[in-house]
Amino acid sequence: MKKRIVLALGGNALQKNGEATAEAQKKIAEKVGEVIANLASKYEIVVAHGNGPQVGNILIHEEQAASDKAPAMPLETAVAMSQGQIGYWLTQAINNALTRQGKRRQVATVVSQVVVDRTDPAFKNPTKPIGQFYTESQAKKLAAKNNWVVKEDAGRGWRRVVASPKPIDIVEKRAIESLIADGTIVIATGGGGIPVVRTKVLKRLKGIDAVIDKDYAAAKLAELIHADIFISVTAVENVYINYGLPSQEPIHRITPRELKDLIKYGYFKPGSMLPKVEAAIQFASRGHDKIGIITDIDHLAEALNGKSGTIVTK
Amino acid sequence: MKKRIVLALGGNALQKNGEATAEAQKKIAEKVGEVIANLASKYEIVVAHGNGPQVGNILIHEEQAASDKAPAMPLETAVAMSQGQIGYWLTQAINNALTRQGKRRQVATVVSQVVVDRTDPAFKNPTKPIGQFYTESQAKKLAAKNNWVVKEDAGRGWRRVVASPKPIDIVEKRAIESLIADGTIVIATGGGGIPVVRTKVLKRLKGIDAVIDKDYAAAKLAELIHADIFISVTAVENVYINYGLPSQEPIHRITPRELKDLIKYGYFKPGSMLPKVEAAIQFASRGHDKIGIITDIDHLAEALNGKSGTIVTK
Repeated sequence: MKKRIVLALGGNALQKNGEATAEAQKKIAEKVGEVIANLASKYEIVVAHGNGPQVGNILIHEEQAASDKAPAMPLETAVAMSQGQIGYWLTQAINNALTRQGKRRQVATVVSQVVVDRTDPAFKNPTKPIGQFYTESQAKKLAAKNNWVVKEDAGRGWRRVVASPKPIDIVEKRAIESLIADGTIVIATGGGGIPVVRTKVLKRLKGIDAVIDKDYAAAKLAELIHADIFISVTAVENVYINYGLPSQEPIHRITPRELKDLIKYGYFKPGSMLPKVEAAIQFASRGHDKIGIITDIDHLAEALNGKSGTIVTK
Repeated sequence: MKKRIVLALGGNALQKNGEATAEAQKKIAEKVGEVIANLASKYEIVVAHGNGPQVGNILIHEEQAASDKAPAMPLETAVAMSQGQIGYWLTQAINNALTRQGKRRQVATVVSQVVVDRTDPAFKNPTKPIGQFYTESQAKKLAAKNNWVVKEDAGRGWRRVVASPKPIDIVEKRAIESLIADGTIVIATGGGGIPVVRTKVLKRLKGIDAVIDKDYAAAKLAELIHADIFISVTAVENVYINYGLPSQEPIHRITPRELKDLIKYGYFKPGSMLPKVEAAIQFASRGHDKIGIITDIDHLAEALNGKSGTIVTK
């Protein structure tokens, strides 16, 4: 039986040197597609991806050119739009790579709603900056008008900040699982998923403006669809201790418990390596047969063979 | 065994009185969701939908607020974005209606690429206006810069026009079929699908700026996934002869051959009832057990019971 893997691709994976045209991003997607198609004979594959730069540009366009006749879409809908956009590029690129390799597999992007908890403490303290920069007075006017929280961003201007709550469920999980079981390569939970809450009494789904970390969402998906391996694909071959210092040391094989200790010592940066490390720990803690991997796209195949990357397992 | 149906929803179905906020469109989606959930016990359901007003607004935002750092997405990618957007709204609305009705079914939107033929005569004569209005000189400048065709639009200004080629295949057809066979309500080929061509020698998929009629795309999907019934959901209960005249007559049950004769007499307007009628004929011509229906959302259930709508069958 094929092992089932969930790959979480970095949000910047499709933009090199900030080149944000569709053409430039599709070109990079073709390379990603090749790597994924290479794995298609051996694994059942789900691709989750980030959307930071893409949804940022969508929001900028939506807000700057908004009018009464063509109003701006809210963040949650903009995430859905970015799932269509990036999902299309990846689907097409993987299809083309499969064709080049003479493999016949279906590829499909499933628009994905990810459930968060309205009482998640993240909603009390929004920290995730999104969209364009404003002057202080613009920002405060928009905040009053749209019920936004705005903050000064590292001397670069003012931006809207939103909550980054933890994913607790994925609405389309069974559809996604049935597709992979059928041999389809699935792209899902793009951008961490469209954030939705489930209302208390009537259990209705309702979109909410927030940003879910794509590694947490992908690890949650890996759990829900009973994947064997969760892989966070990032910019470096390994997780390092003292990254960038002369004393830098790569981590090869490590248990979730050991890695948790390293978190306590403050080795990993929040918003950077920390969420990837936490997502890998969370997934690998679920059982002795579960593996979390952190590596870059060039070492993906080797890491799956246990010969590269940081491998987290009990 | 449940009958398998493909519903094609009009592109204006989610916008009443031009109200284009996400909130207003989601509200209407909830009603559509209720109707679809009502059919869930009896049918396997695929929902195809238009995207005219939505992709129009996306293009306006993309083009008006474009910059080097945040360049405008091309039409084909904008269609993918509208599939994410509308697919999300419909998925959530159908989910909520199923919850209200105490039914358990998965709902999933599949981002859909629809293959067209690069030699389709439509590419020689683009007729479909898209995006915003320009002055003549703006339009001509943009046409030269972006390789667009622009045309004067009924005294209202100049617009870009694109080809409307016929759909010949749907890339994700097998994934869509496997989802419905598994009991999932699927939203697919939104906006007629993301238009792609397959290159001649290498058989690579490549997006192309065009607009595929959503009724043709939905009827093609119905054919490819072996649906029993194709339904074009429009603004009127029936197809009429002499629509709007004192001599107006509703068509109830009709054969594809009879309906073809009525087309020859010029009874149906291109860009309005004609594509729906042609899509229904095309589907119903495939066999004695195939049914094409044209009706409005209020008469959908009755029409499926043979008691309303225009029913096209051999």
